[in-house]
Amino acid sequence: MPAHYYFSQSALLDYMIRYFLRWQVPVEDAAIAAEVLLSADMRGVDSHGIIRLNTYYGSRLRKGLINPLSPMTTLKETMTTIAIDGGNGLGHPLGVKTMKQCIEKAQGSGIALATVRNSNHYGIAGYYAMMALPHDMIGVSFTNSGPLVAPTHGKKAMLGTNPIAVAVPAHSQRPFVLDMATSIVPIGRVSVYQKEGKKIPAGWGVNNNGNITEDPAQVISGGALMPLGGPEIMRGYKGYGLALMVDIFAGVLSGAGFGEGVYGSSGNTVANIGHFFAAVKIEAFRELEGFKKDMDTLLTQLKESPKAEGEERIYIHGEKEFEKADRAAVEGVPLSEAAVKTLKQAGEQDGVEFDLTPI
Amino acid sequence: MPAHYYFSQSALLDYMIRYFLRWQVPVEDAAIAAEVLLSADMRGVDSHGIIRLNTYYGSRLRKGLINPLSPMTTLKETMTTIAIDGGNGLGHPLGVKTMKQCIEKAQGSGIALATVRNSNHYGIAGYYAMMALPHDMIGVSFTNSGPLVAPTHGKKAMLGTNPIAVAVPAHSQRPFVLDMATSIVPIGRVSVYQKEGKKIPAGWGVNNNGNITEDPAQVISGGALMPLGGPEIMRGYKGYGLALMVDIFAGVLSGAGFGEGVYGSSGNTVANIGHFFAAVKIEAFRELEGFKKDMDTLLTQLKESPKAEGEERIYIHGEKEFEKADRAAVEGVPLSEAAVKTLKQAGEQDGVEFDLTPI
Repeated sequence: MPAHYYFSQSALLDYMIRYFLRWQVPVEDAAIAAEVLLSADMRGVDSHGIIRLNTYYGSRLRKGLINPLSPMTTLKETMTTIAIDGGNGLGHPLGVKTMKQCIEKAQGSGIALATVRNSNHYGIAGYYAMMALPHDMIGVSFTNSGPLVAPTHGKKAMLGTNPIAVAVPAHSQRPFVLDMATSIVPIGRVSVYQKEGKKIPAGWGVNNNGNITEDPAQVISGGALMPLGGPEIMRGYKGYGLALMVDIFAGVLSGAGFGEGVYGSSGNTVANIGHFFAAVKIEAFRELEGFKKDMDTLLTQLKESPKAEGEERIYIHGEKEFEKADRAAVEGVPLSEAAVKTLKQAGEQDGVEFDLTPI
Repeated sequence: MPAHYYFSQSALLDYMIRYFLRWQVPVEDAAIAAEVLLSADMRGVDSHGIIRLNTYYGSRLRKGLINPLSPMTTLKETMTTIAIDGGNGLGHPLGVKTMKQCIEKAQGSGIALATVRNSNHYGIAGYYAMMALPHDMIGVSFTNSGPLVAPTHGKKAMLGTNPIAVAVPAHSQRPFVLDMATSIVPIGRVSVYQKEGKKIPAGWGVNNNGNITEDPAQVISGGALMPLGGPEIMRGYKGYGLALMVDIFAGVLSGAGFGEGVYGSSGNTVANIGHFFAAVKIEAFRELEGFKKDMDTLLTQLKESPKAEGEERIYIHGEKEFEKADRAAVEGVPLSEAAVKTLKQAGEQDGVEFDLTPI
């Protein structure tokens, strides 16, 4: 059995759109959500892609925990800022439409910031940051998420894996696209080790006493992930600080849930996730070509710098993902057996049969 | 012999101002530089404070490597942005004056961003971020610095320890003040271990082959610091990505030096450091009191969350530093013996005698 099945982009998009339509998601929003989910699988971030169509989106739409109409209300707006209430809608259309407005505002004002409250999981943070690239802007996106990370000296999951995404265009080089959880690893990575019966590296997570454990089960049941950096001696309080910073911008500034309050106390309430977006017009600061050529110089300097013993390549952030997307555009989009299985289940359960033929 | 001598704030300020005036620094700028340096010692970040008066600022002023007049030229300006050339001046007055403009602009426009190129070391990044707090704004500051950090899979120091500072006001709680180098530790921390004849924790730095070493001498001579996270298995490429992000905002966007180019190839050239500042008016997004009370709730939730075994307290970023500053305001500002020694040397060398009496 192959580890992955390959599907055409258009077939997957078509399937996902049909699936969202079945839940009364408007066609425009369905197309956006499908596109963002597909982009994750294209870029190799399959944990945030199509595998969640059923397990997250379908599951919550089915329970009435997401409003399929994703109604957007503008709470406050200035020349440079916009604060949105997402009406408990799908995170992807809310995110894409808000980032679009942010970019439009930045065309005029040089910079713009936007917040969204009352939203749901929006997929990969990097998608929204990258929307700025064709406009010769720097894009930024943060989102908060359900509590999984313990603060330094703590043992209870109090903060989400709260990602930071920043995208910056270059000239001949590929753009810099940082898209990072502020925990060391996402919880899904720990689950993979558990399924494979393997120990996790010491430092990824703590048990229910707050001690570092190599047992993935202890992290998942009653424990917590550690923030980037890990223990105090390795300055894990910096990762904790970054996770908290994201929660402030995406959660508190937007008026969404924050800290323990994201998803409420049980899993059966609305998520009230918050997002934060920024667009920065490079030409507000300096001439565009000079900026892009300096980006090329900096990225090339790094890539061509001397390698550590045993290493052959230094990567720029986003580079691996661009290469995967290029490959997927030619070879098809790889879906794991688990992803195909959950799509088939979704189809049976919800009457939208997953009948796609692998390439 | 005491580990520290305590001095009054006003006496230290007075001495530092006299020292800067001796180098033809205008009195307004001298007062700013003294104030920023003092604030580092007050907050316990003594590596970035008065100890550098001679070793960094005096040393470079003496060699003509800093322009004491710190002439500011506005390269580009809009309602929301300002790009400054710092004329190779002192980082502190350039930083303070630019952040002030940023805050003024944000009063009108909701948000403002600023860059400074052609500057020098500006002390603690947190000082500039914290300037936003009395204005009920979120403050942000980044700066790049000389190459000390190797990219993931690399062995050569290509990026600075490039700090990120973010300050956010709360209601009854102290503000959140994140002020973190994007390396695990600064190089000064490695030097302390070397002086004390101690091994460093595995992961702080690499030797000249790019392998992790516990020998501080190998990191300092021919090796490099590791970015936050450390090795790849602990996701050190995220710290590398944050260091690179700071270099893009502070170095490339400003038109300053970046990567290996900061301080040129030898130490005897101008620094051409770049800074980045942002001010965000909270009321552009939501009502201020609600925001501040939510900040209190989030920070209190974290501090009161269950402690790991053996731990008694969970800190919010900046909290330890505020407590130290409160203590220094009562007991005097602690200076290490090494700091006092370098001030005395500065006095003898430059004719500004350090004749302060410890409290």
